[in-house]
Amino acid sequence: MPLNQTQKIIKAHLVHGDMAPGAPIALRIDQTLTQDATGTMAYLQFEAMGVDRVRTDLSVSYVDHNTLQMGFRNADDHRFLRTVAARHGIVFSAPGNGICHQLHLENFGRPGATLVGSDSHTPTAGGIGALAMGAGGLSVALSMAGEPYTITMPKVVNVRLEGRLTGWAAAKDVILHLLGLLTVKGGVGRVFEYTGPGVATLSVPERATITNMGAELGATTSIFPSDESTRAFLAAMGREADWQPLAADAGAVYDEEVVIDLSQLEPLVATPHMPDRVVTVASLAGLKVDQVAIGSCTNSSYADLKSVAQVVAGRRVDSTTDCMISPGSKQVLRMLATEGLLEPLLDAGIRMLECTCGPCIGMGGSPVSGGVSVRTFNRNFEGRSGTKDAGVYLASPLTAAMVALHGGFTDPATWGEAPAVPELPADVPSIRHLFVFPPEDGSQVEVQRGPNIVALQTFEGLPDRLDAEVVIRLGDDITTDHIMPAGAEITALRSNVPAISRHVFGRVDADFVKRAEAAANGVIVAGENYGQGSSREHAALAPRHLGIRAVIAKSLARIHRANLVNFGILPLILVDKGDYERLEQGGNVTIPVADIIAGGECAVALADGGSVRVRNDLTVDELEIIRAGGLLNYVRNARTRG
Amino acid sequence: MPLNQTQKIIKAHLVHGDMAPGAPIALRIDQTLTQDATGTMAYLQFEAMGVDRVRTDLSVSYVDHNTLQMGFRNADDHRFLRTVAARHGIVFSAPGNGICHQLHLENFGRPGATLVGSDSHTPTAGGIGALAMGAGGLSVALSMAGEPYTITMPKVVNVRLEGRLTGWAAAKDVILHLLGLLTVKGGVGRVFEYTGPGVATLSVPERATITNMGAELGATTSIFPSDESTRAFLAAMGREADWQPLAADAGAVYDEEVVIDLSQLEPLVATPHMPDRVVTVASLAGLKVDQVAIGSCTNSSYADLKSVAQVVAGRRVDSTTDCMISPGSKQVLRMLATEGLLEPLLDAGIRMLECTCGPCIGMGGSPVSGGVSVRTFNRNFEGRSGTKDAGVYLASPLTAAMVALHGGFTDPATWGEAPAVPELPADVPSIRHLFVFPPEDGSQVEVQRGPNIVALQTFEGLPDRLDAEVVIRLGDDITTDHIMPAGAEITALRSNVPAISRHVFGRVDADFVKRAEAAANGVIVAGENYGQGSSREHAALAPRHLGIRAVIAKSLARIHRANLVNFGILPLILVDKGDYERLEQGGNVTIPVADIIAGGECAVALADGGSVRVRNDLTVDELEIIRAGGLLNYVRNARTRG
Repeated sequence: MPLNQTQKIIKAHLVHGDMAPGAPIALRIDQTLTQDATGTMAYLQFEAMGVDRVRTDLSVSYVDHNTLQMGFRNADDHRFLRTVAARHGIVFSAPGNGICHQLHLENFGRPGATLVGSDSHTPTAGGIGALAMGAGGLSVALSMAGEPYTITMPKVVNVRLEGRLTGWAAAKDVILHLLGLLTVKGGVGRVFEYTGPGVATLSVPERATITNMGAELGATTSIFPSDESTRAFLAAMGREADWQPLAADAGAVYDEEVVIDLSQLEPLVATPHMPDRVVTVASLAGLKVDQVAIGSCTNSSYADLKSVAQVVAGRRVDSTTDCMISPGSKQVLRMLATEGLLEPLLDAGIRMLECTCGPCIGMGGSPVSGGVSVRTFNRNFEGRSGTKDAGVYLASPLTAAMVALHGGFTDPATWGEAPAVPELPADVPSIRHLFVFPPEDGSQVEVQRGPNIVALQTFEGLPDRLDAEVVIRLGDDITTDHIMPAGAEITALRSNVPAISRHVFGRVDADFVKRAEAAANGVIVAGENYGQGSSREHAALAPRHLGIRAVIAKSLARIHRANLVNFGILPLILVDKGDYERLEQGGNVTIPVADIIAGGECAVALADGGSVRVRNDLTVDELEIIRAGGLLNYVRNARTRG
Repeated sequence: MPLNQTQKIIKAHLVHGDMAPGAPIALRIDQTLTQDATGTMAYLQFEAMGVDRVRTDLSVSYVDHNTLQMGFRNADDHRFLRTVAARHGIVFSAPGNGICHQLHLENFGRPGATLVGSDSHTPTAGGIGALAMGAGGLSVALSMAGEPYTITMPKVVNVRLEGRLTGWAAAKDVILHLLGLLTVKGGVGRVFEYTGPGVATLSVPERATITNMGAELGATTSIFPSDESTRAFLAAMGREADWQPLAADAGAVYDEEVVIDLSQLEPLVATPHMPDRVVTVASLAGLKVDQVAIGSCTNSSYADLKSVAQVVAGRRVDSTTDCMISPGSKQVLRMLATEGLLEPLLDAGIRMLECTCGPCIGMGGSPVSGGVSVRTFNRNFEGRSGTKDAGVYLASPLTAAMVALHGGFTDPATWGEAPAVPELPADVPSIRHLFVFPPEDGSQVEVQRGPNIVALQTFEGLPDRLDAEVVIRLGDDITTDHIMPAGAEITALRSNVPAISRHVFGRVDADFVKRAEAAANGVIVAGENYGQGSSREHAALAPRHLGIRAVIAKSLARIHRANLVNFGILPLILVDKGDYERLEQGGNVTIPVADIIAGGECAVALADGGSVRVRNDLTVDELEIIRAGGLLNYVRNARTRG
C-alpha cells in the first residue's frame, strides 16, 4: 500500500500500536531537544530515572529563553544545563548561540528522523523532512532514556501547494492563510503534510517557517518532503551526508486535503489576540504602529533578515517606531556581517538584540502601553508581549520591514517591486565548534546546581495498605492554579521542588503545607472536575513532595489525572458522591492498595469504622506506575529488571 | 597669572563666585545630557519650570539604561523621553544607539565646553577636553533652563603622565593604578587634570576610559588637554570644526600633583567589592572565572573591542566561561562589522548583546551564584551585578579577553606579545542621522505619557501663617530608606509621584499616608539626623505631595535638608531638644512663616496655648525658595518677573 511521508516515518519508527487515526502508537525517538525554560525540569527528571547516558542518536540542550539574567537564577540554570549535559551525553548550546529550532535546523535536524522537543515549536524541523513533535519535559526525559514516545496516530492532511509566491507574499503568509482557514483548533490530532508542485518553489527556511507555525493550528506536527532543496540546504550547512530523499509514495492516501495556490496569496497579518484572526495587510492601511520586532524561531533565518536588509537599505525606520531584530543564530548574524548586511540594518536605526527568543516570549521588548506591535513571531496572545493592553500583529519580515519604514500599515500595492528572495551565500560559515559536545565518558562530570536547582527526590512506592489523613477537603472546579499558583516569583522555583512546594494551595489555604507535613501520608478530597486548567506537572509533583498519596474526588480533569499517575498519586473517584461529606478534613482513612484492581472498585475504611466505596479508571500499566511511586520509578525499575 | 586647563574653562564660564578651592562658584553650562533612568524625573522637573525651550547650546536625552523592556514601563519612558525632547528642543537618542557617554564623545562632546549630565560617569567627555560633571536630575533641569550650575571650586590635581604603556598594560590600568593609590575617597573636591609627555601617547578613547573612571575617585571630574590627537579624533567623527586646542598655561599652578610613569604599569584588576582594591593580574593567576563581560561607558570603544577581537581571533573562549560584549554604540558595532571583526568575536563564542549599559548596571548578565565575574566596567560594588554573592573584578578589555580564553586569571608574563593598539579605520561611519533632532518649533508636539508617567504638580507656596498637624513623630536616625523605600517595585514608580507617594513611610507606619492626606497641612517631627542616607529627591518630593509643609527635628542630614528646601518644605531645628516631647502626633501647630528670618529663631505655637522655639540655618535665597513652594516655583517666578 502506498504511504504518505508521515506514515512512512511513523512506520519506520513504530514500536507498537496500530497506525489507524485515533489509536495510540509508540514511536522510537531518534533525537531530542530541550530549551532552558523547560529543560531544567526535563533533566532533573532524566536524572531521577537513573539512566547514565542518553539512548537517543542525539540529544541537544539549547539555552535561548531565559537569557537576560536578571539575578542569579538564569545563570545557575545555564551552568546546571551545561554540566548535566556533559554528564549524560547531551550536546549543549550556550546562551547567545541562537534559538533552538533555528540552530537545530542548521546543525542537527535530519530528514526522516523522529524528534521530540520540550518546546511547542519543535515542528520547525519538519521543514527539513523530520517528524518533529513538541512535548512535555517528562516525555522528553523518557525519550532520552530510550523509552518509546506515545502519541495518538494522527490524521494526515495533504496540504497541496500550487503555483509560487509572488510580489510581497512570503512563506509566513502561507501559514497565516492556513490559520485563517482552519483556526487554531483546526489541526488537533493532525499532521499537515505539504505536497504538490509549489513545494519545490520554497527553500528550507521558508518551509521551516510554515511547519514552525503549524503549531498554532494545534497540529501534532507539519512536514515537508526532503528533496533537492533540502539536499542543497544541508550541503550548505556542511552536512550533505545527513540528507536522504523522502516524499509520499505515488498514490498515497490522505485523511483530508487542503489546496493552496501560492500565486494567489498576498501579505497577511494575524490581528490581536489570536494567530487565526487573519486579515490582509491592505485592510489595515493607516494603522499607526509603535513597535516592530523581527526574529523568533518562525522568522529569523538569514533569508528572513537579508530580506529586511534589502527593504530598509538606504532608508531610515520611522523615528516614532521602535524596531528591533533578534537574529536566529550566530551563523545568521555572522553571515549578515560578512555579506555587508548589518550596515543597512544599523543605518536604518534598527536595534540589534542578542541571538535569542527575546521579545517573542516576553523576555524583554515589551511595547508601550496600549501600543500596536507588529512581530514576525508565532503567537499574539493577550499579554504575551509583557504589555497587557498592547495589541500584537503577526506578519512576515517583509511586511514588518515596510511597516517599520512607514511607521504603520500601508497598502502593499504602494510598496513597489519586492526584493528578490534571498539565497544563502556561497560560503556558509559553520558554528559547529560553538556547541559543547559531551565527553565519551561523562561519569566523572560534576553536575553543578545553584541554590535554586534541587535534584528530584526518589518517591517511595505505595504500601499495600495506606493509612492516611484527609489533609484538605475542597469544593468543585479546583484548578491547577489553585493547587500550584503561577506568577513570576513562584514559577522561578520550578527547578526547586522543596521550595515551590511551600506554595501548594497557598492562595486557598495558608496552613495546608503545615498540615500535609504533619500527616505521615496525606489524602486530598475534592468535588467535581478536580485539577482542571493547565498541564503543569508541579500540581502533582509538589503535593507528592508534601506526602500526598491519593486524591479522592467526585471527578477528575483528564490531564491532571495523568500527572497524578506520573507522580505516583492514586486518583480515586467516589462511587456515591454523597460520601464526600463523610470524608472530613482531619479524618483518617485506610486505602487497601493491594486489593485495588485496574478499573475496579474498593472500600476506603474510615476512622469511625465505616467505609466509602471508590472506583478507579486506571489501566493495568497506570496502576503499576502508581504502585511503583510514579513513572520515573517505574521506568527505573523496569531497567533494573532488565 | 598662568592658569591650568580646569581654571581656564571655569574662568570662561564663571557666572559668579570666587575661584578659590572650597568656595561656591556658579558656572554657565553649555551642554547637558541625561540617561533614561534619571532623565524622566529631570524632564518632569524641567517641564514644571515652565521654560519652553532649553537654553543650553545642546541638550541630549539618551536611552541606555532601562532598555530590556520587561513590561510597559520602559517603553513608556522611552516614548515620553522622545516626545518631551521634541517639545523642548532636546536631541533624542533612542534605545540601541549606544551608551550615552560613548555617543556623546563620538557625536557632541566639545573641548572647553561645560557639560552637566545626570549620570555619574559624565566626566567621560573630559577625554576630549570638556569640563564634564555628573549631577542630580534637578541640577540638569536647571542647567537646561539656563540657570548657572553651582559647585564648590575644586582643587586641581596635576596627574603628570610620563613614558608610554607597554605590553598588555592599557588605559584601564592607569586609572586602576590611581584608584589603588588614592582610594575611592581620594578625589573628593578635586579635578584630575592630566598633563605631561605621556598624554600624547594616549588616544581619545584611552583618555576617556581614564576620565570616565575618575568618577570612582569621588572626583568632581577629570580632564585631558585637547591636542592633535583630539583633533584627529574629532576629524574622524566628521566634526573637526568642534576642535580647539586647550591645555594648561606654561607655569600653571596646581593644588596637588601625582606622577605616573606609564611604562611601569602592568595589567591590574580591582577585586571585590571596591574599585580601589587593586592588585596585579599576575597575583590572581589560577583563579577560575565564570563570566567575562566586556563593554560599559568605560571600555566599549572601537579600539577596546578591536583589541578583544585581536586577542581572541582564531581561538575559542573557554567553554565554562560565559563571555559577553555590549558595544558602546552603533558606530562601534558598525565598524566592527565593516572591518571584519565581528567574525572572530562570534567564532570565539562570545555573546553579542545590544549596544547599551546592560550588565554594568545589573540590567541583565548576572553571573552564577557565588561566581567570579571579570568585567571591563567601572564599579564592582557588592550586589550590583544582580547576584548578591558574586565577586566582580574590574579589568581592561585586553585582560578580560585573555581571562575568557583561559577560563580564569593567568600570569600576563605567559600571554606572549600584546596586539598592536588599534586605531580608528580610515573611514569612520557617521550615525548622526540616528539621533532625532528637535523641530525648530516644538510647541505643537504632544508629550506622550504612559500611565506611569505623571507630570509634576505645581506646589503652592507657604502661607504667611501655617496651621498644620503633626502627622508623625519619629525617633533618631531616620534614613531616606525609611521615608521613601527603594526596591524594584517602588523605584519603578519614580516618574509617578502620586503613586510613589503611597509608599512614604510604608515600612514604618502603614497609616501615615492616610493621616497626611486627612490633614490639610502636615508637619513631620523627628529626632537627630533626620533624612540621613541616600540623596534621593523623592524623600522630599513625595511627602510634599502628601501635604507635608515643614519638618521640625533635633537635627537634619545635609543632603536631605537641601532636598527639603528644593521641594518647599521648611526645615526647622528645635532650639531646646526637650521640646520634642511637646510636639505630639496629632497635635496642631502654627508656624509664623512671615516672621521667619534666615538663620533666625521663631516660636511655633501649640494648640495648648504654649509654644516651642525653633531655629533655621537657611540662607536668604533658600528661605525665598521655600516660601515660593520650592526651587521649581522660584525659578519659574524669577523668569516671570524678568
